[in-house]
Formats: sequence, structure tokens, C-alpha cells
Amino acid sequence: MAPVKNGRYLFNEIPTGYPVPGKTTIYDESETIDLDNVPLNGGVLVKILVLSIDPYMRGRMRSPENKSYVEPFKLGEPLANSGVGVVLRSEAPNVKPGDHLYGFYRFQQYDVITDVKSFRVLENKEGLPWSVYLGVAGMPGETAWYAWQEYAEAKKGDTVFVTTGAGITVIQIAKAAGLKVIGSAGSDEKVEFMKTIGADVVFNYKTTKASDVLEKEGPINIYWDNVGGEQLEAAIEYAAPGARFIECGMISGYNTTDHYHVKNLFKIVTKQLHFHGFIVGFLRHKYVDEFYSSFVGRVARGEIKYKEHKLYGLDKAGEGILDVQSGKNFGKCVIVVAEE
Amino acid sequence: MAPVKNGRYLFNEIPTGYPVPGKTTIYDESETIDLDNVPLNGGVLVKILVLSIDPYMRGRMRSPENKSYVEPFKLGEPLANSGVGVVLRSEAPNVKPGDHLYGFYRFQQYDVITDVKSFRVLENKEGLPWSVYLGVAGMPGETAWYAWQEYAEAKKGDTVFVTTGAGITVIQIAKAAGLKVIGSAGSDEKVEFMKTIGADVVFNYKTTKASDVLEKEGPINIYWDNVGGEQLEAAIEYAAPGARFIECGMISGYNTTDHYHVKNLFKIVTKQLHFHGFIVGFLRHKYVDEFYSSFVGRVARGEIKYKEHKLYGLDKAGEGILDVQSGKNFGKCVIVVAEE
Repeated sequence: MAPVKNGRYLFNEIPTGYPVPGKTTIYDESETIDLDNVPLNGGVLVKILVLSIDPYMRGRMRSPENKSYVEPFKLGEPLANSGVGVVLRSEAPNVKPGDHLYGFYRFQQYDVITDVKSFRVLENKEGLPWSVYLGVAGMPGETAWYAWQEYAEAKKGDTVFVTTGAGITVIQIAKAAGLKVIGSAGSDEKVEFMKTIGADVVFNYKTTKASDVLEKEGPINIYWDNVGGEQLEAAIEYAAPGARFIECGMISGYNTTDHYHVKNLFKIVTKQLHFHGFIVGFLRHKYVDEFYSSFVGRVARGEIKYKEHKLYGLDKAGEGILDVQSGKNFGKCVIVVAEE
Repeated sequence: MAPVKNGRYLFNEIPTGYPVPGKTTIYDESETIDLDNVPLNGGVLVKILVLSIDPYMRGRMRSPENKSYVEPFKLGEPLANSGVGVVLRSEAPNVKPGDHLYGFYRFQQYDVITDVKSFRVLENKEGLPWSVYLGVAGMPGETAWYAWQEYAEAKKGDTVFVTTGAGITVIQIAKAAGLKVIGSAGSDEKVEFMKTIGADVVFNYKTTKASDVLEKEGPINIYWDNVGGEQLEAAIEYAAPGARFIECGMISGYNTTDHYHVKNLFKIVTKQLHFHGFIVGFLRHKYVDEFYSSFVGRVARGEIKYKEHKLYGLDKAGEGILDVQSGKNFGKCVIVVAEE
């Protein structure tokens, strides 16, 4: 077979505010790949099916001088994130054509993977759509499950305040554990969905002040933070003594240099608050087997519900990134690169 | 014996900035007490010898509407804090005249105590001056010892950054545990003392930027925070992944409504930092016996050094409070109310 087009989605320019598709990132079709003959060097050739778009990707769109927990994207190179692909050819032991590999992919249609060990062969006995392994049965689900196990110290009757993002899964874990759940999101549609999956109190943070809600419905024992800023300040203000703050993200500050001034930090002392920042990868070793053996089954049985925000075509990656940063997505954002 | 004067030090006015002696607080000599005949109601009559002045007292000089972990002082009533007094008369079981009671006293020369159980009889086999039981062998020492045990997760070779305050004790605990210690204080004299008790790197935060020092000497694994604000921001910036932040106080924000804007809070997430606010009283039950049986002995043997800032006469309490809030004190501030 003649070489085929191998579309790639490249990092093109460091953004100062929101990333702009076609400027910050561009779709490129200049490369081709010979699927029959490309050398594998002991690895595998994969056709990528789905790629995940996550909030933290904004943090990689930075200048290399700024250190952080993940490497910055390289200008002119493809973006990268978790995805699922199907193996076309293999020279790797224990991996055969037709296997589905979950792991960290460059944003392109096809790729040769040599560090096969860092990928996981998905059995998928549950028959879930592959995209679900990027969401509630993947990294975002792991994020919710691992950090809740590690830091929530949840007791029946506790009150938790969950902000948007990984929020949907956390709400369901918390409800199943017998907690009162307060949820916030940035659109009425999301707020309504939070209600349908069991949140006791919900509000749209764009039209209602978190502090007003928490004053009435708090104090809170657990705060699941995806946004930082004004909602973090409100959570501190209405935290019960000894409350746990699970610091998963602070998206409100990602696209601006004008950070909200949280003015009540000294209450961390007086209320004896515990803040736990975390990166899901560092908790994985402790909980990953339980996650795949037990939590994914709860998803397949419909006990844990989810929403997806699917965009079709690798060229839509930039749009997906902007949707996630601006909160336009409703559910886990996934780029469908190819059908199987 | 005729009634004698019973001087009291009263809360007079809610301050907006630094508390002003003679305005925020006033010394009052209008009351007398009949030491021979005052009814004890099953309690004890105590002559107060020493009273402690601590940073957190500023937080009690507030309007009652503002909730916090300790009750506000009442206008027109004496201040209160820990102290040591000698028993003059007793109707309480297990307490006899001549015993020394450590506990929470109103700021006056004599007082009748009825909740005797909340006080501790100091054996003082070590023969330490009573004032030491308000400092390194009292609440500030407990603060350092308890929170270090509970939250530091110190490993030999770790680097800790300690800000002034309980800092002197923490520095010595950390050095004894084999850590590299960076210390900051607000005067060259304090900085020099930190050096003599073993700190490896010291600086005056009024003339040197914490961020410059930490950039060179960090990253830090543990931050002992007594000040908040700009030093907290620098500590976040130069924290190692997974660092522990022991949030003991944020004095930089106590006397102003114009709080420093800590702009890098999102790094709590990316660096996986753990913040632990705490109030010493809530850790006491876990460590208090070990404290008196082991730590106080280390003080008596000179293994743990200390400094005192003594003021003589109850009428000097307001001055002591201002010294502590403005950082003028060098060492633990104690009011010597009476000689034995």
C-alpha cells in the first residue's frame, strides 16, 4: 500500500490568554506514513482512535524556562495526551495486531510506539466504548477515585463542595458514601445534570456567589477544588474546622496573569485546614488495580454515570482545548480521530 | 489582712491596625481582693507570677460577629492567656498552697480559679524558672514539638525553611533530626541568634528577599510558616514536589486589612503540596505526656536553647503585645506579674 497521509496537531505558539485554534495550535497534513513498511524497531504501529483533552494541557503550553511537574510542549511538535489506539503491526512481545493500547500518544493519526511497556492493553470485557477509557474509566476517573481514597477522610453525614471538572464522578462517589453534596458548574445545563446524578445542592457560579450558597448550606468538611480563585476563598470561609481541601486544579487562573486575590489564607491556620495538591500519576501505583477491577465495573453497570463532549476529526483538537479551558464542554472532552 | 489592690489588664477597644497600649488595652487598679476571706467555692486562690504574650492574641481582639477558633476578648474584661501562678489557699482536692498551677489565666494579679481541672500542677523537678513554662517548656514549645511530630515527615537530608516565631525551637528540633535549616527573622540580632543555635542559612527578611535565598538554597521539603504573605509565596515557588507546609501562623496579615496577594496558589496542585493548618490545643492529647517527660528535660539539660523577652509589671502587658505584633521582641515574651 502506498504511504498515507498522517495528520498531526502541532503546538505552534505560546498563548498568553486562552489558546487560539489555528494560532496557538495548528493542524498539519504535510507528513505521510507507509503503514506496511515503516520500521517498528521492536515496537508497535498504532492507529489512534480517540484522544483525550484535559484542562492541565494548558499548563504545558508554556515557555520551557518555566518549570512545572510536566514538560512543556515543544513548538512545532505534536501535542500529546492520553488516548486509545488499535495495533496494526507489532514486534513487541505480548502485544498483537487488534489489541487496544491505552497510554500517552502524540496527537497524530498513526504512530510507532517503542516504549510499549508504558501502555496498557485494555481487555474491555465490559464492552465500553473506547472513549470512556479516556474519561470516567480513564485518567479523570482515576483522578476522582484515587484522591478521594487518599485524602477525603469522608464520614457519612459530611458535607462536600465539588466544583466542575472531575466533579461529576466525585459527586457520585460522595453520594454513594452518604455525604451531602454541594456542586457548582458554569452553565444551567451542567448544574441540572449534577442534580440528576444526585447532588443535593447545585448552583451556577456565573450567576450565584459560592459564598452565599456555602453560608447557607455549609460548613463544608471536604472541598474538591478544580477552579481556585473566588470559589476557593468561599470554601475557606465556610470550611468546618479540620476540613480537607483536595486541590485537583485551579482552572480559573490558567488563562490569565491577573489571578484572583484569595484574601483569607490565614484561616488555613485558624480552621486547621488540610490542603492536598496532587498529580494523579503519583497516586496510581497505590490504587490502579482496584480501579480497573472494581471501579470500571461500576461504570459498566451504570452505577457511575458520565457525559461526553465528542469532537470528530483530529483537526478539531484545538477547538476541544478551547472548549475545555472556557468551560464550554459539557462532559469529558474526547477527539474521535478514527473509527475502528 | 485588709483587702489589697488587684490590678487588671482590660480589653478596651477593637483595634484596626496594631493594638495601642492605653487605647486598645488599659491597666486598671479599681478593684481590690480580700486574700484571706474571698470565697473559693471549692476552688483555689492564686497569685499570678508570669503571663504569656503570644501572637494569636491579636486574633481575639475582634468584634464578636467574626467567628474564629477562639472566643474574642470581651470589651471591659481582662485579657487572658496562659500563665503560672502560686496557690495561696485551696479548697480543691489534690492542690495545696504553694503548688504552682500552669493554665489559662485572666490578666490580673490574683484570681479565684474554680475549674481547677483545666490547670496542670507543675512539678518542676528540673528547677526551671517559671517563665520557661510559658515558652519553650510551654505552649510555644508544645506548638513546635507537636506539629513537627504530626506533619513534618522529616527525613535526614531534607531542607526546611523556618520563619520567625516558634522558629527558634523548630530550628533546634530540625537540626537534631539531621536537616538543612534555612531561617528568616526580622532583625540582624535574631538572625545571628538563629545561626548560633544551628541554622545553616539565615537571613533578615526585611533586607533580603526570601525568594532570592530559596532560589539558591532550596528547594525546600518543609516550610514552617509563622508569617504568610510574601515568604509563603516564595516557599511555594521554591518547594520541592510533595513538600509539607506547616501553617502555624500568618502574622504578616494580622494587623492589616491589605493582605499580600499570594499569586502562585495553583502550584499547590502542580507541586503536590500539603498544607496543614493547626491549633496546638487539638494536638495536645496525642503528645503532651511525651512533651513533659522528654522534651522539657532536653530544655533543662541545655540541649534546647531559648530566649526570653521579659517585661516587669502587669501594666506592661499592652507593651508586650505590641512588641510581639511588631516583631520587636527577641525571644518569648513574658510579663512578670509578681515575684514569688
